Amino acid sequence: MPKQIDHEKRRKQIAEATWRVILDKGLIGASVRNIAEEAGVSLGALRHYFTTQDELLVYAMRLVKEQATVRIKKIAMSDLPLKEKVLQILLEMVPTNKETMAEMEVWFAFTFHARHKQELFGEMKSEIYKAVKNLITSMDAVGLLKKNLDLEVEYESLYALVDGLAIHAMLEKDRLQEDQIKKVLMRHLDSICET
Amino acid sequence: MPKQIDHEKRRKQIAEATWRVILDKGLIGASVRNIAEEAGVSLGALRHYFTTQDELLVYAMRLVKEQATVRIKKIAMSDLPLKEKVLQILLEMVPTNKETMAEMEVWFAFTFHARHKQELFGEMKSEIYKAVKNLITSMDAVGLLKKNLDLEVEYESLYALVDGLAIHAMLEKDRLQEDQIKKVLMRHLDSICET
Repeated sequence: MPKQIDHEKRRKQIAEATWRVILDKGLIGASVRNIAEEAGVSLGALRHYFTTQDELLVYAMRLVKEQATVRIKKIAMSDLPLKEKVLQILLEMVPTNKETMAEMEVWFAFTFHARHKQELFGEMKSEIYKAVKNLITSMDAVGLLKKNLDLEVEYESLYALVDGLAIHAMLEKDRLQEDQIKKVLMRHLDSICET
Repeated sequence: MPKQIDHEKRRKQIAEATWRVILDKGLIGASVRNIAEEAGVSLGALRHYFTTQDELLVYAMRLVKEQATVRIKKIAMSDLPLKEKVLQILLEMVPTNKETMAEMEVWFAFTFHARHKQELFGEMKSEIYKAVKNLITSMDAVGLLKKNLDLEVEYESLYALVDGLAIHAMLEKDRLQEDQIKKVLMRHLDSICET
């Protein structure tokens, strides 16, 4: 019988090697050659799965998105009160542990890489904006928010806060840690929710 | 008489060429060769001023910082009421025109490049954090802020908001424009100031 290869598994293995290389060497070091070496596959084998570096990056990014989506759905379906649920979901968007930190590094590396390549970037661009907008809309729908808020301004505010925290959690982790991130998000939610 | 060269002017000219190359091609394209070509100087001349690409990037970053500092000092010394002054200074930290947009691109490109090189990054790291902290402290000193704020949380909140807005102003400018940025910042200041 011919040797069976689990192609999806192999693709994941290569994508994960891509993450490790980006984390270690930055995007500049994420050459196809370095990634093949890290994944322990030949350059030829890697090219069988991903023809270009861009394809590889897009795949690695989709994995990030899928993993985050799974975690967020789990929270969304829990029995927590809505405000607490929103807080927990927002915390999934800010890196606070090794796993989410790695995801965020890939996300940002990708974002900056891809900004000169609109066709790659378009798909991912405002995922977090949409997510934040949904959270605010759902709080508004059940009357949790203060009256007279300008919702468009609230979307931008929370979105900027989340992405700003994410960057600082990643780049300035000596100062900004999980308990402080939680306080900042709580403070924001308190400022828009009815007491 | 030997030909006089204004060395400082030449360094600036090269730094500005560096910006243009980063804006055009991303940091990956900011090779010493590309920069020399853009600046219209020989590779040898460029190396006379900047031995390594890192030296060049640090210089370009310092220029960004100096230019922003000049603009901010001008606002700080104006006759505006303090809250309005703070708003105008915060607006200087978020790119809203072509000049500040270019500065912010260089800043972020540098930040991501330099994060793997602590010796370059240390100096620039929390300039904006310090600036934001100063703004809040000076509002607090004259009793402009609400009582019972947790100031550490307020520093992080405003800092995250400013950097988040800066990224979005740069990467998602179709949606986020100056009037909306101003509303978001005003809304934030209103939420921490006594009415």
